[in-house]
Amino acid sequence: MAFVDLNCDLGESFGRYTLGLDDQVIPLITSANVACGMHAGDPVVMAQSVERCVAAGVAIGAHPGYPDLQGFGRRDMNLSAEEAYAFVLYQVSALAGFCQANGAKLHHVKPHGQLYNRAAKDEVLANAIARAVRDFDSDLVLVGLAGSCLIQAGRGLGLRTAGEFFADRNYQPDGSLVPRSQPNAVIANEDEAVARTVEAVKSGIVTASDGSQVAVDFDTICVHGDGPQALAFVNRIRAALSAAGVEIKAI
Amino acid sequence: MAFVDLNCDLGESFGRYTLGLDDQVIPLITSANVACGMHAGDPVVMAQSVERCVAAGVAIGAHPGYPDLQGFGRRDMNLSAEEAYAFVLYQVSALAGFCQANGAKLHHVKPHGQLYNRAAKDEVLANAIARAVRDFDSDLVLVGLAGSCLIQAGRGLGLRTAGEFFADRNYQPDGSLVPRSQPNAVIANEDEAVARTVEAVKSGIVTASDGSQVAVDFDTICVHGDGPQALAFVNRIRAALSAAGVEIKAI
Amino acid sequence: MAFVDLNCDLGESFGRYTLGLDDQVIPLITSANVACGMHAGDPVVMAQSVERCVAAGVAIGAHPGYPDLQGFGRRDMNLSAEEAYAFVLYQVSALAGFCQANGAKLHHVKPHGQLYNRAAKDEVLANAIARAVRDFDSDLVLVGLAGSCLIQAGRGLGLRTAGEFFADRNYQPDGSLVPRSQPNAVIANEDEAVARTVEAVKSGIVTASDGSQVAVDFDTICVHGDGPQALAFVNRIRAALSAAGVEIKAI
Amino acid sequence: MAFVDLNCDLGESFGRYTLGLDDQVIPLITSANVACGMHAGDPVVMAQSVERCVAAGVAIGAHPGYPDLQGFGRRDMNLSAEEAYAFVLYQVSALAGFCQANGAKLHHVKPHGQLYNRAAKDEVLANAIARAVRDFDSDLVLVGLAGSCLIQAGRGLGLRTAGEFFADRNYQPDGSLVPRSQPNAVIANEDEAVARTVEAVKSGIVTASDGSQVAVDFDTICVHGDGPQALAFVNRIRAALSAAGVEIKAI
Repeated sequence: MAFVDLNCDLGESFGRYTLGLDDQVIPLITSANVACGMHAGDPVVMAQSVERCVAAGVAIGAHPGYPDLQGFGRRDMNLSAEEAYAFVLYQVSALAGFCQANGAKLHHVKPHGQLYNRAAKDEVLANAIARAVRDFDSDLVLVGLAGSCLIQAGRGLGLRTAGEFFADRNYQPDGSLVPRSQPNAVIANEDEAVARTVEAVKSGIVTASDGSQVAVDFDTICVHGDGPQALAFVNRIRAALSAAGVEIKAI
Repeated sequence: MAFVDLNCDLGESFGRYTLGLDDQVIPLITSANVACGMHAGDPVVMAQSVERCVAAGVAIGAHPGYPDLQGFGRRDMNLSAEEAYAFVLYQVSALAGFCQANGAKLHHVKPHGQLYNRAAKDEVLANAIARAVRDFDSDLVLVGLAGSCLIQAGRGLGLRTAGEFFADRNYQPDGSLVPRSQPNAVIANEDEAVARTVEAVKSGIVTASDGSQVAVDFDTICVHGDGPQALAFVNRIRAALSAAGVEIKAI
Repeated sequence: MAFVDLNCDLGESFGRYTLGLDDQVIPLITSANVACGMHAGDPVVMAQSVERCVAAGVAIGAHPGYPDLQGFGRRDMNLSAEEAYAFVLYQVSALAGFCQANGAKLHHVKPHGQLYNRAAKDEVLANAIARAVRDFDSDLVLVGLAGSCLIQAGRGLGLRTAGEFFADRNYQPDGSLVPRSQPNAVIANEDEAVARTVEAVKSGIVTASDGSQVAVDFDTICVHGDGPQALAFVNRIRAALSAAGVEIKAI
Repeated sequence: MAFVDLNCDLGESFGRYTLGLDDQVIPLITSANVACGMHAGDPVVMAQSVERCVAAGVAIGAHPGYPDLQGFGRRDMNLSAEEAYAFVLYQVSALAGFCQANGAKLHHVKPHGQLYNRAAKDEVLANAIARAVRDFDSDLVLVGLAGSCLIQAGRGLGLRTAGEFFADRNYQPDGSLVPRSQPNAVIANEDEAVARTVEAVKSGIVTASDGSQVAVDFDTICVHGDGPQALAFVNRIRAALSAAGVEIKAI
């Protein structure tokens, strides 16, 4: 690829609770996934987050999750397809309204946490999410794990899609992520993480946990803004991509 | 008036909890105010409610309320203007999304419960609500108590507004409702309620609790669908208006 | 058995939402399982429910569920053992407080919905629940599906336990319930349901879905109070047990 | 006074959201007010908080608040007396259960935020809170603003009470706090705050905002643990009290 997108989840504060260094990460990314008030975020936070992203010229995406603030959307809630459809449509619409009020347009949708993980493998759930996105606005880009069920579901419904690559996660030979429950889920060595990310962008290939070479078809790289170390890593990724001649821009 | 609108709050069920005879009241009204998941309603209920209203050709409005399901939005929560703006924008946008997914367009916004009551008298709150509606979509009709702060705020921002008349409530000499805390708040005698409603539609005048004549400038009548008696009353109102030559149609 | 307990879930109303004919079912039962504000119920409802049960002399149990009001505790939430322990301890303690304020003592604990179903088969979850009950008050009776993991976990920790029989549900040959997803989950024929319940009480044997005879070791029968038909069925069960010489009393 | 209590609100984290340096403030205080899951805290956080307090030998109190996580219990919710009673009883009971499971006993109850502020002046609310505490356990100490309605309500019902002094807040001539909406609400100068606290402990007198001398009848000083500066201030207060010969111990 000659260019790639950097996306980050943000707007995850809630009431008096602050999470993430949003102000500092926004200048470093090209796409933002804004929480929609179910697993994180609240209307006041959403208003502020959208304003910040509009001001920075970052592409704004909705980041819908399971309705479980206490569990941060990371516990599987086993929604039916009808429930998942309605909960995604609700959240995407709500965030789109904040964009509209700011003269901006919602750009993409990326499910959060366990909704994202399950939609990567569960066709029924993936299809419910994709339908909600399409029924609301068929111009939206659906973001999901590269090569996942969600990407397939979006394409099947005629949506533009964007596959996502994780800079700091290990992959299994089938192209799925090594689950967080396993010790080698996260790549702790930053040099390695940066190197494999640049390699993946250039070649479309990543080395899986068993040493095999896996093709990853992606358009965007997921980065984090939840601490100083995370921010430093984003800067390293940016510098390495730039040095490799890769332009960073929104999808 | 040669015509008037009949509106009803609905979509107030939540999860396993059912409230209101929505299926039966929808054919009797011309405008529906659909709860948006904060004081009542949930995304699944919203999807079903919007589908029903679209099928029946009823004008669909958002019915945003305080974020207090346990109190059904009837307890004052003292939101700041910034909070009220964001909570209203969130709810209106969410409901508009269900309309959009059903090929319909959101028609109006009517605040619920204590948000409605307080906005009738509190200019700061009224203005926050009106700004949220205008910033989302300046074509929306803002519905509030006839002659209230909310109507004034909407007009001041260039919104179309619709004043609301309550068929079963007593009025004070200043045109505000007798509070529910007072014994004569509700007109128990249905004959009287029907007669004064028709009179108000024809003349724009209602007899207040002290016997004085008060001008009420309204476009829509609020009716209820929460039980068989409420439905029978709606039918009586419809028949009486029809007999008086008043057409019932959406704003 | 010469005697058996009849238990019913109640206190499931929430705010303005009413569920169940609690007033009418309380005189027909000997044990009540009161919702604790997470999947159903709220503090005001809990106060009223406990007062009613104390007045009627019914044994009061806590009915903790998943923290998911919208899903009524029927969606699996995949709590960790630590989370399940804390959520059960929270809810049991809260209900015990209402008992204490009414001069009564909490008598038993019966998990609700999917927490109940999963604890019947998941040893880790069953153990977390049993520990929470024991740590709060080791005199409490733990109620679960007859022969289930939850009963075993309770016994393993030295708790008194009570196995539960479902009058209107079909059993599988291994003593578990036929899942609700299967067509023959519920016994629609009331005559059959009454007859097999009396037979199970007298003999400890129930005919499973494949025709085989299954031993069920139970102390209490679950009945429902969510409608006129359910109440009529409770009356039939009571009459049939009485005719068979079985006394109905709390565990 | 020859001795005084230092109390701090804690256990205010929720799910993934962390608030307060609980581990660091616990060794510096003699009483902890633990959030109960309505305005802050969740069952997992409550379990951890109680464990920590038990380990440190700190007196544990319940810190019930309005059911408004998004507003952190700082927005007035206008609960009826019946609602306030039930919501306080619920939260106090829940926290007492975690104490009981840890072999400890709940020591006191201090309402949070706007529930605390309003109960200082609203007799009906104050009485509802005091009744809930007494009905649950008449051995509990009720903590409120020194000289407030809440203290009077507790005494009227035979409860032990503890008046609270705020080290960093200005007082009005009637002994109430200068509202946070006024510019001089908080004493920014730490030297002054420390000096007036020691003076108040020694003499029972504080200089009000108009320069007049006001008697404050208190047993405990409220301190904060939400940041490094707050912790440093607690250390200064401790040192100054010690230098003045005042022992710091729980009520």
